[in-house]
Amino acid sequence: MTQRKLGRGVAIVGAGMSKFGAFPDKATRDLFVEAFRDLCASVDKGFDPRDIEATYIGNCSSDLFEGQSHTAPLMTSWIGLAPRPATRIEDACASSGVALRQGILAVASGLYDIVLVGGIEKMTALPTEKVTDVLGTAGDTLYEIPAGFTFPGFYAAMATAYLDRYDATPEILMRVGIKNHEHGALNDKAQFGQRIADIMQARKASAAKKGQPIPTWNDEMEFLHDDRANPPIAWPLRLFDCSPISDGASALLLVSEEIAKRFTDTPVYIIGSGQASDGGLSDRADLTTIPAARLAAQQAYAMARVQPSDIKVAEVHDCFTIAEILATEDLGFFAPGHGWRAAAEGVTARTGARPINTSGGLKAKGHPVGATGTAQVIEIWKQLRGQAGARQLPGDINLGLTHNVGGTGQTAVVHIFERR
Amino acid sequence: MTQRKLGRGVAIVGAGMSKFGAFPDKATRDLFVEAFRDLCASVDKGFDPRDIEATYIGNCSSDLFEGQSHTAPLMTSWIGLAPRPATRIEDACASSGVALRQGILAVASGLYDIVLVGGIEKMTALPTEKVTDVLGTAGDTLYEIPAGFTFPGFYAAMATAYLDRYDATPEILMRVGIKNHEHGALNDKAQFGQRIADIMQARKASAAKKGQPIPTWNDEMEFLHDDRANPPIAWPLRLFDCSPISDGASALLLVSEEIAKRFTDTPVYIIGSGQASDGGLSDRADLTTIPAARLAAQQAYAMARVQPSDIKVAEVHDCFTIAEILATEDLGFFAPGHGWRAAAEGVTARTGARPINTSGGLKAKGHPVGATGTAQVIEIWKQLRGQAGARQLPGDINLGLTHNVGGTGQTAVVHIFERR
Repeated sequence: MTQRKLGRGVAIVGAGMSKFGAFPDKATRDLFVEAFRDLCASVDKGFDPRDIEATYIGNCSSDLFEGQSHTAPLMTSWIGLAPRPATRIEDACASSGVALRQGILAVASGLYDIVLVGGIEKMTALPTEKVTDVLGTAGDTLYEIPAGFTFPGFYAAMATAYLDRYDATPEILMRVGIKNHEHGALNDKAQFGQRIADIMQARKASAAKKGQPIPTWNDEMEFLHDDRANPPIAWPLRLFDCSPISDGASALLLVSEEIAKRFTDTPVYIIGSGQASDGGLSDRADLTTIPAARLAAQQAYAMARVQPSDIKVAEVHDCFTIAEILATEDLGFFAPGHGWRAAAEGVTARTGARPINTSGGLKAKGHPVGATGTAQVIEIWKQLRGQAGARQLPGDINLGLTHNVGGTGQTAVVHIFERR
Repeated sequence: MTQRKLGRGVAIVGAGMSKFGAFPDKATRDLFVEAFRDLCASVDKGFDPRDIEATYIGNCSSDLFEGQSHTAPLMTSWIGLAPRPATRIEDACASSGVALRQGILAVASGLYDIVLVGGIEKMTALPTEKVTDVLGTAGDTLYEIPAGFTFPGFYAAMATAYLDRYDATPEILMRVGIKNHEHGALNDKAQFGQRIADIMQARKASAAKKGQPIPTWNDEMEFLHDDRANPPIAWPLRLFDCSPISDGASALLLVSEEIAKRFTDTPVYIIGSGQASDGGLSDRADLTTIPAARLAAQQAYAMARVQPSDIKVAEVHDCFTIAEILATEDLGFFAPGHGWRAAAEGVTARTGARPINTSGGLKAKGHPVGATGTAQVIEIWKQLRGQAGARQLPGDINLGLTHNVGGTGQTAVVHIFERR
C-alpha cells in the first residue's frame, strides 16, 4: 500500500463541542445542535452555515443505545442543513476519526469545498451493564464475546501482557489516570472537572458530613488502591483506569486549503492522515501493541513528512489507562516497553516534554464513543491556535496529532495537524 | 450547492454478489466472502486482491439484526484484506449506495487507485415483527415511530396520497409487483425466482396434493386480490407490494479511470453521482414525491451531462411497489402523476421502452438492506456489458442509472454509469 498525495490540501477553520457528561434531558440531536453552535461561534471571520455542502457524522451505535439508526440525515436536518448529503460513518469508537478522514477525502476529491464533520453518542440512557453489552458488539460477536470478553476484559488482557513483559506495575496505570484528571480539571467541557485528589477530599468531606468514619487515605495512590473507592473492574484495571460512559457531540468545519483564509487567519492544516484495520484481539500474536495504530501512524507521518519527535502535542485514545501507554509506543513517541516509564516520570504530563491528552483525554473529558475522534481534534485545534486557556502549552505549538482507536484496534486512525 | 467536477474519473472493473434469500446457516461474513469471490471471478483480466487499498462497506444495522457493530474491519479481515482501511457507511437502506459514493470520492481524491465497495445485511435471524422494529429505527424514533408508524405504514401513507391525487388504483401497484417477479424469475441470484403466476399455480397444486379445496384464482390479479393469498399489510399495500426480508452481500471493484483497462476491456465508468438528505416523512408537505431523490438525480444528471431520456436501463429502490412509481417520476422518466400510467401500460417492463428493475428489483431479487445499493449497480454493470443473460436488454445499452433510498427518503443517492 503506497501512500499517495491528496489531490488538494484541507484545513480546519472551525471546531465546536457540547459539554461531555450525562444529560438525561437531552436527545442526541440537542447535543449535536450544541456542538454546531459552538462551532459556528469559533469561526473567526464568520460564515454562512448554508455554505456547508455535505456532512459526515461518526456514530458508534445509536441503534443499540437509543433505538435510532440513520442518524446522519437526522442530525443534518436538525442543524438546518438538509438537503445536503449526510453520511454516517461507523467504525466503533473510531467513528468520528474515520468520519474526519472521509471529509478530508471528499474535499480533496474536488467535489466539495466546505464540509462539516462530527460525531455523536448518547450512552447514559442505558444501565451500565447494557452499555457494556453494546460496546461488546464492536468485538467479534461470534468468536470473542461468547468467550466472556467485555471491553474492560480486552484491555485488561493487553494490560496483563504488558505488565508481564515489562517492569511496569498497576501503579503506573494509575499515574495515567491521575495525570488525565489533572488535565481535565482545566477543561470546562470535560465530564470530570476534578483532580483525583479533589475527588478524594470530597469523599472525605462527605463522610464527615454524614457522621460516617472518615477514610484514612493520605494521598491519591492510597485512594486508588482502596478496593471500595476504586474497585477492580478487570484485573489489573480498576474503575479509575476506565474512561466513563458519556453523552456528547463534536464537530469540525473543513474547507479546501485555498479558501481557508476566508474563514480565519489561523487555519489548522491537516497534513497527515492514516487509517488501518485488523481482525479481533483473538487473532493477534502480540497484545502489547495495536498493529493498526502503528500502521496508521506510519501512513500519517509519511504523508505529513514529519517524525514522531516533531509532534508537540497529541490526543491519544485512552479508553483505558493501558491504552494511553500503548498509544505512546505505537505512535513512536517512545520505544516498545518504554511508554510506562515516560508515564511514571511525568514526561506525558502537560508540564512534561511530551504532553499527551491535555484535554483530559477520554478518561476525564469523557468518551461519548462516536464523538471522541472529532473531539480529540478540537483540543489540537485549540492548542495550535493558542486558545486552550489554562491548559495551553507554552512555546511554539505548531504540530499536533490525534490517535483514535475502534474496538480493540480493528480500526485505528491517526491525523497530523499543522498551524503555519 | 454547486455540483463540481471530480478530481479524476472512476470506473467499475469487477462486481459480485451472494445469492439473496434466507440463509440460516450463514453468517454475514460468509455472505460477504461469497460476494467477494463472485467479484474476483468477474474481473476479465484477473487481478491480485492484495492490490485493493481500502474498503467501504454499507450496512444498515448489523447492530440490531445480529448484535454486531464494527462490521467493516470484520468483513475486510474475513476476505483477507486487513490491514487495509475499512470504513462502514450507514444511511439505512441507502447504506451501500452511499458507500459507493465514498469509494468514488476516495479514488477521486488521489489517495487510492483501487477500492472495494460493498454492502451486507443479514435480516432473517429475527422474527418478522422484530425486523419491522429494526427498520423503524431508520425513521424518527422521537416523533414518528411513537405515533405508530412502521415502514409499510410510511409507504402506505405515500401510496394513499398518490392514489388520492391521481387516477391510479391499487391494481396499478400490483402490476409493478407482477412485473418485477417476472424479471426476478430470470435472475438466479434472486430471492424469488418465480413469477407471481407460478406462485399461484404452485399454491393450487399444493392444495390439490393436500386434498384441500383448490382456490379458484383464474389469473394473477385474482390471486393478488385474495385477502388470504395476499393479505393487506398497510392499506393500500398488500404482501406482494412489499419487498422481502433478506440476507445477502454485494461488492464492486472501483479503480481510477486511467488504470481501468488493465482489468477489463469493458470498464463501466461512473459519470454521475448525487446524494441528498431530508428530515422525516412527518416534515414533508407533499407525500407523492421524495425530494431528496429528485435532488440527487438532478445532481447526477448535471455531473454526467445527460438527460433522463438518455438512460437505457435503471434499477430503482422499489422497497414497496409505490416506491418504484414515485422513483420513475423523481428521476424524470415520467412527469409527476404519470408514473402509474407507464407502469400500467408495460412501459417499465423489460420489453418496454423504459425498462426498470430488470434484476427483479428489491421486490423479487430481495432486499438485504445494506447490500441493496451495490447490488443495484451489479445489474447495471451486467446490462451495460451484455452479460445479463436471459434478461439482457436488446440494443446498445450504454447508459444506466441506480436510485437508492434510505428510510422514507431522509437519504437518496443516484449514480449514472456509462459503457463506452
